[in-house]
Amino acid sequence: MLKEPFTLKLSGHLFDNDNLLPSYVNLIHEFWKNGYKMVVVTGGGSLARRYIELGRRMNANEAMLDLLGISVSRLNAQLLAAALSDIAYITIPTNLDEVFRAWLTGKLVITGGFQPGQSTATVALLVSEFLGIKKMIDCANVDAVYTSDPRIDPNAKRLSKVSIAELKDMLKSKTVAGTYDLLDPWALGIAQRSGITIFVVGCNKPETLRRLMINGISEGTIITP
Amino acid sequence: MLKEPFTLKLSGHLFDNDNLLPSYVNLIHEFWKNGYKMVVVTGGGSLARRYIELGRRMNANEAMLDLLGISVSRLNAQLLAAALSDIAYITIPTNLDEVFRAWLTGKLVITGGFQPGQSTATVALLVSEFLGIKKMIDCANVDAVYTSDPRIDPNAKRLSKVSIAELKDMLKSKTVAGTYDLLDPWALGIAQRSGITIFVVGCNKPETLRRLMINGISEGTIITP
Amino acid sequence: MLKEPFTLKLSGHLFDNDNLLPSYVNLIHEFWKNGYKMVVVTGGGSLARRYIELGRRMNANEAMLDLLGISVSRLNAQLLAAALSDIAYITIPTNLDEVFRAWLTGKLVITGGFQPGQSTATVALLVSEFLGIKKMIDCANVDAVYTSDPRIDPNAKRLSKVSIAELKDMLKSKTVAGTYDLLDPWALGIAQRSGITIFVVGCNKPETLRRLMINGISEGTIITP
Amino acid sequence: MLKEPFTLKLSGHLFDNDNLLPSYVNLIHEFWKNGYKMVVVTGGGSLARRYIELGRRMNANEAMLDLLGISVSRLNAQLLAAALSDIAYITIPTNLDEVFRAWLTGKLVITGGFQPGQSTATVALLVSEFLGIKKMIDCANVDAVYTSDPRIDPNAKRLSKVSIAELKDMLKSKTVAGTYDLLDPWALGIAQRSGITIFVVGCNKPETLRRLMINGISEGTIITP
Amino acid sequence: MLKEPFTLKLSGHLFDNDNLLPSYVNLIHEFWKNGYKMVVVTGGGSLARRYIELGRRMNANEAMLDLLGISVSRLNAQLLAAALSDIAYITIPTNLDEVFRAWLTGKLVITGGFQPGQSTATVALLVSEFLGIKKMIDCANVDAVYTSDPRIDPNAKRLSKVSIAELKDMLKSKTVAGTYDLLDPWALGIAQRSGITIFVVGCNKPETLRRLMINGISEGTIITP
Amino acid sequence: MLKEPFTLKLSGHLFDNDNLLPSYVNLIHEFWKNGYKMVVVTGGGSLARRYIELGRRMNANEAMLDLLGISVSRLNAQLLAAALSDIAYITIPTNLDEVFRAWLTGKLVITGGFQPGQSTATVALLVSEFLGIKKMIDCANVDAVYTSDPRIDPNAKRLSKVSIAELKDMLKSKTVAGTYDLLDPWALGIAQRSGITIFVVGCNKPETLRRLMINGISEGTIITP
Repeated sequence: MLKEPFTLKLSGHLFDNDNLLPSYVNLIHEFWKNGYKMVVVTGGGSLARRYIELGRRMNANEAMLDLLGISVSRLNAQLLAAALSDIAYITIPTNLDEVFRAWLTGKLVITGGFQPGQSTATVALLVSEFLGIKKMIDCANVDAVYTSDPRIDPNAKRLSKVSIAELKDMLKSKTVAGTYDLLDPWALGIAQRSGITIFVVGCNKPETLRRLMINGISEGTIITP
Repeated sequence: MLKEPFTLKLSGHLFDNDNLLPSYVNLIHEFWKNGYKMVVVTGGGSLARRYIELGRRMNANEAMLDLLGISVSRLNAQLLAAALSDIAYITIPTNLDEVFRAWLTGKLVITGGFQPGQSTATVALLVSEFLGIKKMIDCANVDAVYTSDPRIDPNAKRLSKVSIAELKDMLKSKTVAGTYDLLDPWALGIAQRSGITIFVVGCNKPETLRRLMINGISEGTIITP
Repeated sequence: MLKEPFTLKLSGHLFDNDNLLPSYVNLIHEFWKNGYKMVVVTGGGSLARRYIELGRRMNANEAMLDLLGISVSRLNAQLLAAALSDIAYITIPTNLDEVFRAWLTGKLVITGGFQPGQSTATVALLVSEFLGIKKMIDCANVDAVYTSDPRIDPNAKRLSKVSIAELKDMLKSKTVAGTYDLLDPWALGIAQRSGITIFVVGCNKPETLRRLMINGISEGTIITP
Repeated sequence: MLKEPFTLKLSGHLFDNDNLLPSYVNLIHEFWKNGYKMVVVTGGGSLARRYIELGRRMNANEAMLDLLGISVSRLNAQLLAAALSDIAYITIPTNLDEVFRAWLTGKLVITGGFQPGQSTATVALLVSEFLGIKKMIDCANVDAVYTSDPRIDPNAKRLSKVSIAELKDMLKSKTVAGTYDLLDPWALGIAQRSGITIFVVGCNKPETLRRLMINGISEGTIITP
Repeated sequence: MLKEPFTLKLSGHLFDNDNLLPSYVNLIHEFWKNGYKMVVVTGGGSLARRYIELGRRMNANEAMLDLLGISVSRLNAQLLAAALSDIAYITIPTNLDEVFRAWLTGKLVITGGFQPGQSTATVALLVSEFLGIKKMIDCANVDAVYTSDPRIDPNAKRLSKVSIAELKDMLKSKTVAGTYDLLDPWALGIAQRSGITIFVVGCNKPETLRRLMINGISEGTIITP
Repeated sequence: MLKEPFTLKLSGHLFDNDNLLPSYVNLIHEFWKNGYKMVVVTGGGSLARRYIELGRRMNANEAMLDLLGISVSRLNAQLLAAALSDIAYITIPTNLDEVFRAWLTGKLVITGGFQPGQSTATVALLVSEFLGIKKMIDCANVDAVYTSDPRIDPNAKRLSKVSIAELKDMLKSKTVAGTYDLLDPWALGIAQRSGITIFVVGCNKPETLRRLMINGISEGTIITP
């Protein structure tokens, strides 16, 4: 994989695991020092779910619950920035304008969510589009896209490559279990209109990310625009 | 229709018509003076299309083209604010936070688009959700939602009432011509999760809006959450 | 206690306890509806400690660790705002200027930390001073100020009333165990120079806060300027 | 003309002409790639006049009308930025501080108007002064400064060079038709006190601008401080 | 004089006089409590001149020197706000947008300069225009407008009333000594186009201001639009 | 002394002396051109005291008085920036975030105070910590730290080196006259936790600063973390 800029979406699940997180931090640091340019987008994980559940029990409305998820994703972004403060832009951007300004400083930009009603995957694709970045790596809670839920369906087929158009059709017919959480139609629409390739990889093994970045070997799913 | 707060989405087409616009301005002024509380969201219309086309000819990318549409919608919002400066918040908000702050001043808030990849209808629903508003009036370029494109299909049926769930199904089967432009799945998702009723009315006759607001008589389509 | 405005500092420990938090939320809501005017300042609690520890393990510096604590306190503030969105200022202020602007809207203002090197107790006193508020209630992780650590020293004396000057002397001679965490010299200095009375109460029993606010009965410690 | 930084004021009329605009965009791109450093300031043109007229018909006051002109000039700036997104600062600055910050990024800065009561020519000179730029090129709707209106007076003399002091005298005696629109006394005062030379050239022929920038050949008027 | 809103420009000279300033502060406080609505704009005075002279000796350019004058005028505004903190908006606005937002809070707004190349008299008129205020009181370093400099010309005539058009003519023929400092052509242009009446009074006797505000008796010059 | 980045705190007294200031400006310019990287923090001096006294006479509260001191320190920062505009970041940052952004531009950053209740020495240490700077030079109104006040006590001992721990003990026993003004416990706490060495030198002789910076020769006091 060439050293062109990319966007790296990190699943919030990474932040639930105190041992896994440092490995990814080291990997990002190593890549950056080797000249890779990237924007990192962090998810909220189980902490986001806890705060959202707490908010829901106290009758917070949907917009407020989304704000809680965004706040947690920003907290995670701040943790990454703290651990990478020699290379990172410390202040976490909260919209595309701020990402753009941070990007121009040449620092590693780390961001969380932007606004209610929007997944962090969508944020990663909006950022890619805005900065003219053509590759987005989705370090997800699953290791690939499947034709159906592998935990239920023994015939579920793992996809090593799929086009956005095919994926949209599969989403419509609801046969791709769990993919809705991974990439919503809006996120896919952004990728499609701006020709962004999405690499889905699991977030449990840093080596998977390393092999993708260094050798261009995908062990998950490539979603082509 | 009770005097509870609502969000009023004005099609950009209104701003192409120098005679129609003042009627709507007067209507908004009259309603405001009569105690109606509302947030107005303006579209871009044909001027947005002209700038987008110009940008496309000069090879601007999709995010930049969306920024042009947003800029035009804000220009239209500024025009409304200029004409209503005795009751309006003069500075055009550019995100939910700013809308919230403007709303707290008790002034009439007028806004345009927020960010790339997002329709002004979605903006209107996000604003409604954020402020706890339960009714959104969509003054659209069409006079109602149809089962198919009435300009093509003589059997097209005009819908006076439809649920979001039904509408989403129709969108999936692609039988509702032109509705995609009116309300995308994301916008509908926001309305659904937050229980917002959408009133689609045409933007060619101010009287249609007046009857809806004063007597609660819908001459277009009511989309129920 | 008269209905003059006050600042309410909530220990981060409240946010570790899913059952206790809603009681305090209800109490704040009830007080607000009864005409009490207040600013709420939230701490970080055990979640802040977890993120700070994680950051420290990844070699983040002291300023960055403080930023993590601030981020968690803001997340907690956002949770409160979500649960109180009918009366609260939704956007969490991040400095005195923003607190001032939020305060002028007449909404319940909720804030977390401001900047590195500064406790949230100091934030609560700076906010009090800036807005001309003369009473600060510190809902703390301890139920009162003691002359020494009651968990260690059987002769520890519980103070029902103490002046700031006396407390500063005690802090110097290091005989007041744990009080440093409660109120640092800088926080006390602000209270002293601006004549702010601090009411320390435990954060485990909402009734303690209720009795203080309604009847002016202090069950903890009153620190007089 | 040496490759020292300059400010380029583009008449709003350029944006009325879909064929002329791309030529100027290409020219700016080419110059930038060849190492010329510049700030571009865009006017509002006939679109600004249309919105101002619309606003006036709806009784908007003078400050609001100026805001409409500013909004259009920013829309034009956004269009330029969209077409030049590989070299431009995407977010349009709205005051001197923001121009300064954008300038420090090394990107091509494009701006429109700043505040009511101020022409975009004045903006261009304030920007020049603030950044220490000593040359301002005014791509205007006229091809030069004349002693009187050439469309009316057959004896009108075209000036190839004039000092600001002389021009101010001519403005006072009202003999320079149309120049008021070109450069108001305030704009001239800024140029004078900071020693900025103004090159007036017509905006109908890109080649005129090219010859000025490459060979330093002025085909319009040089206004010396 | 009716209790309609007005803008009060205070000469920077007031801030050079430690005894005079408190009288004006008391007067403003008294008027505000009696229901007068106003925006106060402060000048820089001799402190501004000292800093500008210091800057000039260290070779600062004109824009930077103006920034120094603006900083001093804001310091003076902050002093007024400090002395009037029970009624004033504490944060000093730095542009029209911020003045507008501060104005909506119902607090007394106090501001200094805005940007280089602009007098605080111009600021006062821009603010008036933006907020729809029709009266501006200029508490100046002179007690009225004269036909020539009374310190030099024994035939200098004191004007009790003059139109903006007449004043502009007098400025052109340079017969009104010192008036340039008082009101530049740009400031007069704003007043003229928006129909703002300017009351020039001396800033040495608070009683002059009191009589003007309470009884509408002008002891200086009324400049009519 | 190696050319590692440092923070330079300039006593406000420098700005009371029109002859001394230019020497320091020249020194900073010379150092910068020779590759020294620094952030300058300016104090308020006697002008701050004058405005604070004026405010106090008009009954301003403590927070407002601190805001006046901060405003003066920013005015002084603006003066420095004006005199150093070829190398300086012109806009004066008002918090750590803004300092960080300014620092990333590679320009000389100059700042004054941040918020009430905080000395500019504390600001200098917070900035150092945030940017990872390990040396802070305090150009103070005294030439060194003494064991007691040398103006009173003939046995006062001048300290050429002292640890923060020792200094804190001395502050507690109140034997170090005037040092409280120099470095408060909070400032020392920041230096201690982040390992920042403080060099106290007098601000009356630029040569003292020069020798420290070029040869690493301290003629004042070195405070070690």
